Amino acid sequence: MSKKEIKTPFFVFNPKSYLYGEELLDLAKKADELAKKYPISIFVTAPYPDLAAIADATENIIVTAQHIDGIEPGRGMGAVLPESVYHAGARATFLNHAERPLTFADLIKSVERATELDLLTIVCADSLKEAKALATLNPDIILCEPTELIGTGETSDASYIKVTNHTVKKVSETTLVMQGAGISTAEDVYRTISLGADGTGGTSGIVEAENPTQMLAEMVEAAFNACQ
Amino acid sequence: MSKKEIKTPFFVFNPKSYLYGEELLDLAKKADELAKKYPISIFVTAPYPDLAAIADATENIIVTAQHIDGIEPGRGMGAVLPESVYHAGARATFLNHAERPLTFADLIKSVERATELDLLTIVCADSLKEAKALATLNPDIILCEPTELIGTGETSDASYIKVTNHTVKKVSETTLVMQGAGISTAEDVYRTISLGADGTGGTSGIVEAENPTQMLAEMVEAAFNACQ
Amino acid sequence: MSKKEIKTPFFVFNPKSYLYGEELLDLAKKADELAKKYPISIFVTAPYPDLAAIADATENIIVTAQHIDGIEPGRGMGAVLPESVYHAGARATFLNHAERPLTFADLIKSVERATELDLLTIVCADSLKEAKALATLNPDIILCEPTELIGTGETSDASYIKVTNHTVKKVSETTLVMQGAGISTAEDVYRTISLGADGTGGTSGIVEAENPTQMLAEMVEAAFNACQ
Amino acid sequence: MSKKEIKTPFFVFNPKSYLYGEELLDLAKKADELAKKYPISIFVTAPYPDLAAIADATENIIVTAQHIDGIEPGRGMGAVLPESVYHAGARATFLNHAERPLTFADLIKSVERATELDLLTIVCADSLKEAKALATLNPDIILCEPTELIGTGETSDASYIKVTNHTVKKVSETTLVMQGAGISTAEDVYRTISLGADGTGGTSGIVEAENPTQMLAEMVEAAFNACQ
Repeated sequence: MSKKEIKTPFFVFNPKSYLYGEELLDLAKKADELAKKYPISIFVTAPYPDLAAIADATENIIVTAQHIDGIEPGRGMGAVLPESVYHAGARATFLNHAERPLTFADLIKSVERATELDLLTIVCADSLKEAKALATLNPDIILCEPTELIGTGETSDASYIKVTNHTVKKVSETTLVMQGAGISTAEDVYRTISLGADGTGGTSGIVEAENPTQMLAEMVEAAFNACQ
Repeated sequence: MSKKEIKTPFFVFNPKSYLYGEELLDLAKKADELAKKYPISIFVTAPYPDLAAIADATENIIVTAQHIDGIEPGRGMGAVLPESVYHAGARATFLNHAERPLTFADLIKSVERATELDLLTIVCADSLKEAKALATLNPDIILCEPTELIGTGETSDASYIKVTNHTVKKVSETTLVMQGAGISTAEDVYRTISLGADGTGGTSGIVEAENPTQMLAEMVEAAFNACQ
Repeated sequence: MSKKEIKTPFFVFNPKSYLYGEELLDLAKKADELAKKYPISIFVTAPYPDLAAIADATENIIVTAQHIDGIEPGRGMGAVLPESVYHAGARATFLNHAERPLTFADLIKSVERATELDLLTIVCADSLKEAKALATLNPDIILCEPTELIGTGETSDASYIKVTNHTVKKVSETTLVMQGAGISTAEDVYRTISLGADGTGGTSGIVEAENPTQMLAEMVEAAFNACQ
Repeated sequence: MSKKEIKTPFFVFNPKSYLYGEELLDLAKKADELAKKYPISIFVTAPYPDLAAIADATENIIVTAQHIDGIEPGRGMGAVLPESVYHAGARATFLNHAERPLTFADLIKSVERATELDLLTIVCADSLKEAKALATLNPDIILCEPTELIGTGETSDASYIKVTNHTVKKVSETTLVMQGAGISTAEDVYRTISLGADGTGGTSGIVEAENPTQMLAEMVEAAFNACQ
C-alpha cells in the first residue's frame, strides 16, 4: 500500500459529530458520486463507528477519521487505535483540531503512526505561528482555521490565505494548505480556492443547509470551477 | 428499545487496543458461541471502528464501547458520539477507565447520554472511595480495579471484594460489582466469582495467552461453574 | 496543628485571576479587618505566588489556594505542591472548580493531601448529582454552583438551595454548603444566606464593582446580618 | 523593564516539587552566592508559592516559575497567572515540561504572555522533531530532554547534543540550547557543556545528593570550568 494521492483542489466534507448512521451514509454516497464526476479529491469524515460502513459503500472518496491516538496496539482503553481506523477503511485522519487539541509530543506520535500506516494527515492550526511550527512535521495537509472564526460564517481573508500559504510552504514545500473557517456557501468555496487555498471544506454550511445533498454538490462543483 | 438484561455472573472480554480487525472478530464470534452455550452475559469490547463488524457478526454477546463522550450530536470533532456507538450495534460502554479518566462533570454527562440510549454503563473505580462516590450515579456495573494492580497478574483479595460489594450496594442496591484486576487464568475467574463478585473479565490474560480462544472459553466456563 | 474552625455563615472572597499584587493585598487587608469585626469566617483566595504576602499581612482571614495537586513532594514539574501552599500560609483550598476540573481519582488524592496538612477543602459541584457524589468524600465545604449560572448574575433559587443542602448533609452531615453562583450584590448575599446556605461568596460582583472595598464590606455585613 | 540577559554557560537548579520552604530557600541563597562568584547565569525554579520568598532573599539568580498559563488577568480559577508570577519576582518560566505538557495553541499563548512581561522562556522538547517545531517560536532557551532519559542518570550523548544545537539554531539563531537529561554529577555538567550545550541543570542529582549544597556548588563550578 501507499498513501492516496491528493488531487487538488480538494474538498473536505467534515460533518464532525452532527451526523451518523444512514443520514451520514447517504451523504457520503453522494460525495462518492461527486468524487467520480470531478477530478478532485473529496475527503469525508465520520465518527469512528461509522467509518467502516462508509468505506464499504464508497469507492472514490477518501474516508477520514476525526482523530487518531499515537499508540501501538496494546493497552490504551478508550483510545483511537490507528490500525483499527485503517482496517475500517479510513485512509486519512484529522489531527489537532481545536476541539481535540494535542500536546506537541502526542501530535508527533500521531503523525508518525499515521505515516507508518499510509494514512494522510490533515493537521489543524489555529494561528499562523502554529501553522509554521506544524509545517516542520511535513504533514500532507495543514488546515489553517483561526479558532475565532469557527462556526461564525466568516471566512479567512485573502491576505491571511496568502501569508499562510507562504509560511507553510516555505517550511514544507509539499504540504497542502486547506482553509476551512466559516465556509457556508458555494461562493465561499469558490472564493477561498480562487484566493489560493489548495483545498477547503464545510461542516455546518452543509449539515444545516436546507438541502445538504444539494449544498454538498454545489460546493464541490464550486471547488472544481475555481481552479479552471 | 430497552436496556439489555444482565445475566450474572457476567464476563467481560476486554481486549482494549490489543486487537482489531479479523483477529478480534474471530474471538468475538467465539465469545458469541459461549454466550449461547452458557446462561451468563458476555460483554465484548472493541475499538470504535470495529464495533459495527462485531455487532453484525454476533447475536448473543453484548457489544461494548471502551468509552463514550457525553455529547449530543453537533460539534465535537474527534469525540465519541454516543448515537454513533449505538447505531453501530453497541449496547454497553465502559466509562472512566484508569486509562481514560473523566472529570466528574463529564462522567455524569456520559452516564446520562448512555442512559438515554439504553446503553449499559460499566463505570470504573480505582479505589473504594471512588467506588462509593460513583455508586451515587447508579450505574449498571461498577468495575473495582485498584490501579496499582492493573496488568500485574495480582487479583483483588477476598476482603477487598467483600468491602467493595458492601460499599457499592449500600449506596446503589441494583448496581452490579465487577472485579477486574489481574485476572490471568481461569482459576482467577473462578475464585473472583466465588468470592462474591457479580462479574469479572480479562484482557492480557486472554490476548497474550498461547491460545486466546481456548483461554476465553476456559474463563467463561469458570465464571459459569463458580456460581453453580 | 489542626484545621481552622469555620464560623458560619462564612464568606468567600474569590478574586480568581482578576487580581494580584498590591491591589489584591489591599483588599485582603480590608477582608482581614472585616473578619475581626464580624464573628464569621472569611476566606480569601489568591493566585499561588500571592499567597505568602497575603498570609504575612493578615491574621483573621483564612488564606485559600485556588487548587492543589494531590502529589507528595518529589517530581511534579509545574504542579501545585500542597506543602508549599501550606508553608506559604494558606489554610484552605478550593478543588474541582469548573475552570479547573479534576478526574475523580485525582480529586480523591487532592482531598487526602489537604486533610493530611489540615487544609480546609472547598470542593465544587456543578450539579446536584455531582454534589451528592462529592459529599461521599466528606469535604469541609461543598460549593454548589450550577455551571450555567457562573458569571451571569443569576443566583441559585430557594428550591435549589434547599434540595442541595438536604442532599449533601444526608450523605455528609458535617459538610457545609456554599452557594456561589451569580452573587453580585449585598442583597444576593443576604438572600442566599437567608435561604439556608451555610456560606456564600463573590468574584466579579466585587472585583468589577465601582468600589470593590465597599462592596466587599457590604457583602460581609449582609452575610452577618442574614443570620441574626 | 526588559528581559534579563543570559550569561552562558547557564545553569538551572530545578528542584521541581522536591523542595519548598526553608530548605529550598537555603539552597536558593547558596545559588545566589554562586551566581555572584561566577560570571554565568543561574536559574532557580520554585513552587509558585515559594517564588516571592526566594526573590526577596536573592539578588543574582534568575528566579524561575515551573509553568505559567497563557491567560490575561480575569477568570481562570486555579490557573497560574503570569502577572502574579512576575510580581512575585520571577523573571523566567519553564513551559511544556514533560510533566506539564501543553497543546501547541496553549503553548503559543504562554510564550506570548511571557514575552509581554519580559519573562525569559525555557521551553521543553522531548524529541528532535519537537525541538525543531518549538524553535519556530523563538524562545530564549529550548531544553532538549528525551523523555526516556528523565531521571535515569543517563545523559544525552555527543551526537544528540550536536544535532539538537544545529537543528534549533538553524531555525532560531538566538535560542540557547539546554541539555538536561540525567545530569547527576559535576562531571555530567562538565561534559555536557564541553560537548556544546549552552547550559544545563539538575534536579534529583542535587536534591538527592548527600550534601545538596556542595553538589550545587560543584555543578556550577563545573559549568564555569567547562567553558574556560
